[in-house]
This record gives sequence, structure tokens and C-alpha cells, in this order.
Amino acid sequence: MKLLDSPAAPNPRRVRIFLAEKGIEVEREEIDIGAGVNRQSPYIDQNPMGGVPVLVLDDGTWLAESVAICRYFEELQPEPQLMGRTGQERAEVEMWNRRMESEILHTIAQTFRQSHKFFKGRIPQVPEYGEACRGVAIKRMAWLDEELGQKKFVAGEEFTIADITALCGIDFGRVSKIKIDPTHKNLTRWHEVVSARQSATA
Amino acid sequence: MKLLDSPAAPNPRRVRIFLAEKGIEVEREEIDIGAGVNRQSPYIDQNPMGGVPVLVLDDGTWLAESVAICRYFEELQPEPQLMGRTGQERAEVEMWNRRMESEILHTIAQTFRQSHKFFKGRIPQVPEYGEACRGVAIKRMAWLDEELGQKKFVAGEEFTIADITALCGIDFGRVSKIKIDPTHKNLTRWHEVVSARQSATA
Repeated sequence: MKLLDSPAAPNPRRVRIFLAEKGIEVEREEIDIGAGVNRQSPYIDQNPMGGVPVLVLDDGTWLAESVAICRYFEELQPEPQLMGRTGQERAEVEMWNRRMESEILHTIAQTFRQSHKFFKGRIPQVPEYGEACRGVAIKRMAWLDEELGQKKFVAGEEFTIADITALCGIDFGRVSKIKIDPTHKNLTRWHEVVSARQSATA
Repeated sequence: MKLLDSPAAPNPRRVRIFLAEKGIEVEREEIDIGAGVNRQSPYIDQNPMGGVPVLVLDDGTWLAESVAICRYFEELQPEPQLMGRTGQERAEVEMWNRRMESEILHTIAQTFRQSHKFFKGRIPQVPEYGEACRGVAIKRMAWLDEELGQKKFVAGEEFTIADITALCGIDFGRVSKIKIDPTHKNLTRWHEVVSARQSATA
């Protein structure tokens, strides 16, 4: 199998960190999203939305969507479990990962997509919406700081995919000048802990 | 356990259909989202984002996010399986469900959220973004029509959670005057098939 990857985007990083946590090595091919390779044939013939990453399986299937790729590897090699152990845990990790996607990663990524010149002409940009997302992202980081006052990681006492999503979202804020407020001590502590893991360099 | 529900919104309907497909009955409590009950204490003390539905478990846990609730029931009662059987199938269903969320349900719901008077004052509305989402939704429905020319259901030959998400998204288009184009024969055929299932009335 082969991972179609891109170094600077937040979603491919989610998958790279997930793989690093599991100690799985996969052949990678870099897709030049700057040149729009992912918006043209033959890429979009297999993945019409043009998203990166994609995992190309040995049977030729193109598996898109970061969490679908992570789920594939979680099923292939359960340990260390990053998506919960029991049924209830798996549901709770799903909840927390989705909260990190919609409230943190999505709002931060939309701030960039809707305002930055990189996406000009690539999507119908609405900069005013990007700025609304910036406001929501900042509020949600304050909420996450409160949540992290009660637990070690986003979904509880164990590191999970929800931490990976939050880390990739928050770190991607740099391109839109969204940063952790230093008065947010819990979020700062959590960010230091997850950034110090070997996987964060993946 | 108890499902905190709302009759008109698309996300609670996803969970109701999922439960109906499994033949599971759960006590329900209607949350008056028109009166903003979900945006006030005590609701937001347990589910800060104010989303509906929520499944309140017997141990008091509030499980939010529709797919997290569906996953809880898939684990509790696997049959009939709605999220895939093998590891690879589960990853592929995850991919298709996420595509239906981001390309169909999200774009259609955002058309409503960003433009409709219901959300005025509830969120920072950007009507121009709502209109951009309308354009994307219409394009994506054309794409889905093509996809459904090659298979019976969204993720393949079996009915899955991806069909539920697509159905709830497309049907919610009515409030924004987004409808299936009658020249889209595959999408029309699929919509008739999934709407004729008993679960669609849930």
C-alpha cells in the first residue's frame, strides 16, 4: 500500500502521527497540492473531492478521508489503541474526535481556506466567513482549555486520535496567526505534552 | 438510557433512522430547539456545543455527536451491520459516510444556517457563505448521481449509515429549496428506494 501525502497540510499530518504512534511504516508519495495535482485528472478520477491524504490499498482501492484511513490501521493493528477499547469508549472517542474536528480543526482550517491567497480561485472564497470562523476558533480554544483542566488528554486519561486532531488543528493556526493564549494554562500544558511525543514530528 | 431528540433537525433523524434499522427502541425526550433550550443551562453544562441529539447513558454520561451515538449502538447490537463488516469495509463506510457529511449534509445544512432567519442572532451568520454552500451542494448532488449509476447504495451494494446521512441531508434541503434534479435518474432511483424503507419515517 501507499500513502498519498502532503507535508504542510493538517489532514495528512493526522495520519502520519497516527501511524507513528502505532509504529507502522508505509510507503509515501508526495502530492504537489501547490501545483494543484490533487485537483486534476488522474487524481480526481479516483478521489473526486481532491482531498489529501489517500491510502492506496494493495487491491487498488483508493481510501480517502483521514479518519477512514486511521480506522483502517486501527483494525489492521489494534495496539496501541487510539480509538477506544470498549464499545462505550469507542463511542466517546468518536465524540471527542468529532468535537475536535468541527470546533477546532475545521474552524481553524476554514479561517485559512476562506481568506488566504493560496485558495483564491481554487474554491469560492468568502473572507467574511473565514473571519467568523476565526472568532469561533478562539472561543473554542478557550473552551478546550477549561475541558483540559479536568483530564490529561482530550478524551480522558489516554492519548487518542482526538489529541491528534486537536494538535494538527491548533498547529495549523500558525498560517492564520491563531495561537494558544498563554493564560490558557491547561491547553498550554496539554500542547507541550502532545508536542513532546516522538510522533508529533511525523 | 434516553435520547434527547428534536423532530425537524437532520442530525436527530440520522440517529432515529439508524435505531429503526436495528429495531432498537429508546426512550426519547424532545428538546425545544426553537425556544433555544439547547443553548442554555443546564443543557450546555453537559453538551457545551448545544447540539442535538444526545444519548444520556445509564451511568449519566452524555454522549453527543450523531455518529458517536450510532457507533455506540453498532457496538451494542451489531446486527444488522450499518457501518461495515470487515476492517476494510468499516474504513470504506467511514469514507463514504464522511463524504456524505461534508459534501451533502454539511453544505445543505450550512445553506440553511447561514441564511435562514431561524439562526439569526443564534450564530454569526454570513449569508454569502450560505449561497456558496448552495452552489457546492448542487454540484455534489450531481456527483452523487453519477456515483449511484455504478452501485445500489452510497457505499456499495449494502444499505449503510452513509445512506442515512445522505437521505437526511437531501431531505433537509427542502427548507432551502434544494431539490433533486429530476434528470438525475440514479439519485432519484436511490432516493425512492431509501425513502420507501420503514426506517425513513422514524
